[in-house]
Amino acid sequence: MTGIAGSGIRIGLDVGGTKIAGLAVADDGTHLAAVRRPTGWGDAAVVDGAVAAVTALIEQLGESSRSIRSIGIGIPGLVDASEGLVLHAVNLGVASLGLASRVREALGIPCFVENDVKAAALGAASLRPGAEPMAYLNLGTGVAAGLIIGGRIWRGARGTAGEVGHLVVDPQGRVCGCGQRGCIETLCGGGALARAWGRGGDLPVKDILDAADSGDERAAGLRADLFRGAAAAVRALVLSTDVETVVIGGGLTALGPRIEPGIRARLRSDAAESPFMQSLHLDERIELLTGDSPVAAIGAALLGAAIAVPSPLDKEMPSHG
Amino acid sequence: MTGIAGSGIRIGLDVGGTKIAGLAVADDGTHLAAVRRPTGWGDAAVVDGAVAAVTALIEQLGESSRSIRSIGIGIPGLVDASEGLVLHAVNLGVASLGLASRVREALGIPCFVENDVKAAALGAASLRPGAEPMAYLNLGTGVAAGLIIGGRIWRGARGTAGEVGHLVVDPQGRVCGCGQRGCIETLCGGGALARAWGRGGDLPVKDILDAADSGDERAAGLRADLFRGAAAAVRALVLSTDVETVVIGGGLTALGPRIEPGIRARLRSDAAESPFMQSLHLDERIELLTGDSPVAAIGAALLGAAIAVPSPLDKEMPSHG
Repeated sequence: MTGIAGSGIRIGLDVGGTKIAGLAVADDGTHLAAVRRPTGWGDAAVVDGAVAAVTALIEQLGESSRSIRSIGIGIPGLVDASEGLVLHAVNLGVASLGLASRVREALGIPCFVENDVKAAALGAASLRPGAEPMAYLNLGTGVAAGLIIGGRIWRGARGTAGEVGHLVVDPQGRVCGCGQRGCIETLCGGGALARAWGRGGDLPVKDILDAADSGDERAAGLRADLFRGAAAAVRALVLSTDVETVVIGGGLTALGPRIEPGIRARLRSDAAESPFMQSLHLDERIELLTGDSPVAAIGAALLGAAIAVPSPLDKEMPSHG
Repeated sequence: MTGIAGSGIRIGLDVGGTKIAGLAVADDGTHLAAVRRPTGWGDAAVVDGAVAAVTALIEQLGESSRSIRSIGIGIPGLVDASEGLVLHAVNLGVASLGLASRVREALGIPCFVENDVKAAALGAASLRPGAEPMAYLNLGTGVAAGLIIGGRIWRGARGTAGEVGHLVVDPQGRVCGCGQRGCIETLCGGGALARAWGRGGDLPVKDILDAADSGDERAAGLRADLFRGAAAAVRALVLSTDVETVVIGGGLTALGPRIEPGIRARLRSDAAESPFMQSLHLDERIELLTGDSPVAAIGAALLGAAIAVPSPLDKEMPSHG
């Protein structure tokens, strides 16, 4: 099974706080194999988990590792993509890990690492040709975006492009995990909504929507916050960078049909008194992914291909800390 | 005087609501001649004023018009740079004007048109090599920014990149000219501050600062709004695009030494509770131009050079209207 057919296979891993989702992708974008494994805690467990996921995919494919062109890993936290370093991935117990080199040494396959939201942005853009320039807005535990310009991840000068979750939109708002008050993330981050709801549960945002549907006023207020925050994030992205499209993904999009109309309606009502804002047609420029769309793994698989072609846009992030 | 020495001369015009500032610039950036003229009202007067400014510069230079490589015009309003059209420049009485072609026909010199803030961004970047990616934040009657990536103006998908003045940062704030409430521009736009102050005068923002210095509490509140709004604009630009530098220009920078420390202090105090925001060092990433820095004319002079070299970043704006 090796040879020409196998020569274009790239593997992408989406390493999350609880699970690793892996995909093997052909040059034409076809998904050839998929795997899902629990994530471990700490440097060695993260490396071992990634290696095991790749090994399982190669076994499924019936290929030798020589037929895999590259491995890409999307992972939360601060990532130095040029050095393949993961820095401050607190949910994984990683402070500073040379993940790319460790996986490359274990498997003998070129390996690239990227922040998971930025990887997902690349994946989302690959599924939406013509939607560029594009922002991918991740509504998960936290809120952050990735920008795609000219087919590539726009990292900015220091790697913090897309951090719109920490723009303050209400000086009277709730205190954010970042220390500021009234960040966008306090309104539409899953973690912040769960804390504000305060009743625990595995799916607190779903619980909030259910309670709001049942007439609970506090839940209705939090649901309104979710729509308001997501609308503010879309505005921040379009008014600063004028992306054509904002693709919304992340854990909260598992509730997509229950939140998409509300976000669009909020974008419209916020623009009701402003001909300028209406002229931007923001409600028509957003698109929600389905909750199970594996964009981070797809984008991770593209990292090797994307990084191999330098461009004037390919800003490398300096190492932090 | 024609020949090699003259072959690199470019002319840049900054067409404002009351005056046209023109510059003749050599290839090495030297300013060879400067002119200042009043601006007229309406299509014909705007064209005639631009032509007269160029003619005056050529006379000063003692050159023939053949030695001028290009004319660039920065002008307020919505500009379709690819077509050389000025659209909705309400302060000039222009609804839709083919300014580039009219000036080209009159003088026989290639002519390019750009929004004045975007032209100023290009000019500011040319004065600050190594400061890229860069945002130029214009604090004038209104508030808007221009982004420079890879040496070029980033227009975005529809030409509205940099419109951070209309991001809402306080739902309880003042109503903006755009129709929304609590836009950044309501806090730090010269027009909005003058309206809030309500006492007329030629230099209302200077009057506000003077009154604040004398202990007037309402003026002190408006001064605090100015610092707060400018700090919010800087955050919006850096957290969305991660520009390395935010260069601040525009009419309000005539008051530079009286506002720069306040903007820096506000950036620091807003970050006081947030290690994440502190890690961005925003107060060190801003730079105020002096009030008389002719960045818009300098940038306009560069339009011909910049537009002549296509790049993947050279997004053209579709025609609006």
